[in-house]
Amino acid sequence: MKARNNRSESFDAAYQGASGAFSEEAALRFVNPSANLLACREFRDVFDAVRFGRALGGVIPIENTLAGSIHTCYDLLSEFELNIVAETVLQIFHNLIAVPGVRFEEIREVWSHPVALAQCENFFRRHPQLTPISVYDTAGAVETLMHDNRRHAAAIGSQRAANIYGANILVADIHDHSENYTRFLFIKQRADDPIQGNVPLRTTILFKAGNRPGALFECLRPFAELGIDLTRLESRPVKAEPFQYVFYAELNGNSADAELSEALRKLRQLAKLVRVFGSYPTIG
Amino acid sequence: MKARNNRSESFDAAYQGASGAFSEEAALRFVNPSANLLACREFRDVFDAVRFGRALGGVIPIENTLAGSIHTCYDLLSEFELNIVAETVLQIFHNLIAVPGVRFEEIREVWSHPVALAQCENFFRRHPQLTPISVYDTAGAVETLMHDNRRHAAAIGSQRAANIYGANILVADIHDHSENYTRFLFIKQRADDPIQGNVPLRTTILFKAGNRPGALFECLRPFAELGIDLTRLESRPVKAEPFQYVFYAELNGNSADAELSEALRKLRQLAKLVRVFGSYPTIG
Repeated sequence: MKARNNRSESFDAAYQGASGAFSEEAALRFVNPSANLLACREFRDVFDAVRFGRALGGVIPIENTLAGSIHTCYDLLSEFELNIVAETVLQIFHNLIAVPGVRFEEIREVWSHPVALAQCENFFRRHPQLTPISVYDTAGAVETLMHDNRRHAAAIGSQRAANIYGANILVADIHDHSENYTRFLFIKQRADDPIQGNVPLRTTILFKAGNRPGALFECLRPFAELGIDLTRLESRPVKAEPFQYVFYAELNGNSADAELSEALRKLRQLAKLVRVFGSYPTIG
Repeated sequence: MKARNNRSESFDAAYQGASGAFSEEAALRFVNPSANLLACREFRDVFDAVRFGRALGGVIPIENTLAGSIHTCYDLLSEFELNIVAETVLQIFHNLIAVPGVRFEEIREVWSHPVALAQCENFFRRHPQLTPISVYDTAGAVETLMHDNRRHAAAIGSQRAANIYGANILVADIHDHSENYTRFLFIKQRADDPIQGNVPLRTTILFKAGNRPGALFECLRPFAELGIDLTRLESRPVKAEPFQYVFYAELNGNSADAELSEALRKLRQLAKLVRVFGSYPTIG
């Protein structure tokens, strides 16, 4: 694995965060270990890198079992015309990480990504002297601590991030619940070639139902009647239209299958807007 | 309006944030201007104040038209056995606020509540020299700036917060979209007496559908068949059960009405879990 930032180079995958980020770990499931990875500051940069061809693929977290959906990524999925080609689920372990030699009693600030901070709410409740501070990345927080040799601050991040930067784990496993998983998507400009064989696929779509009573229900009817499992349904506000929503739905199946393509055809007759982001396998 | 923190006193309403917070502004729509208000540090403290009778009511933001749902409040609604008795919608204007005399060029950090920071993403993209820092409240950020006389930091908050603390608005209206509204709920231990007359009410419920295909669709069927408008549907992960979800639904109507009570009776036969948080009017 090599992470470079040379603008002229083409990368195999872009991810958000610094080296050692959970997204980098997810990226290594989608590409081979010798791939060129591009570390991006923001989720939008990942989408841009893929859209403009700087990277062949992009890795984005979409859902965490404790914190819920990563809404920024849902909104970016809707804004950019990219395809989801794979997903993977990573178990998340959070640790309190500091510069070697720093004692827990010295720490006043804890830096991490807002989602990581949200996953350690109970820890902050038990230690009210610690002020959580949002930064753009868990691994980036560890990197900054080490670079600045800070003694009154700690970071929340992975054991891998601590190892990469030579930092020290002061308290291991500080997340609220041990069943802490993040689901990541791999996005590309175009869909991959159809997968051969009987691999189970999941399909993500967006639709906008009308405003009359029963409109959402009617939009779900084709899936129910054709026996398609709707695994998630997520409403998101439409930014220019207060209290109007679009729905992101996740369905078990391939949009090329007879049942699912028939259900999508019916949905297009009912909904104001339908977009299919792709049908993709789960990478273990 | 008086904000006190004497433990033995009983308050008319609790809200999260410091004086000048948007939640305080919402509270003043639910109680009269001379009411005793309790400023709380965390959303959980608001729920606790109501549950243990320190405050007669609690004010919580539940949804913003740009940032989406305030998930912590949804989760607390589920955890605490309280009733929603009213809602109100507040238009949100965000301003960059600093100590009087501080110039924009001096500022390096911007403090605010994470939701307020999220609503000003474009502003931060245009000014990459500014680091967003999460704090527990917009008005509290202004209060701290003024108290510490900080020159390299600004806060994002309301004009009202700037006025209360004698701070200066450096840049007005820095939010991404002008159509920025937050919906607040007023919660109490018990439901208020039924409202007389023909006031339109909204009902919020939680349910858990089964895992088989079509289970969510079946749970929505009673509402569609009885002509009840489902205005929102929000899935939230179940913390102890990865990739299992509960749904929060908002329905137009009163749970005491014949149609809605019939639909809820049918839902109870289909869903694994159903809870009704109350039927409540919108306060203008």
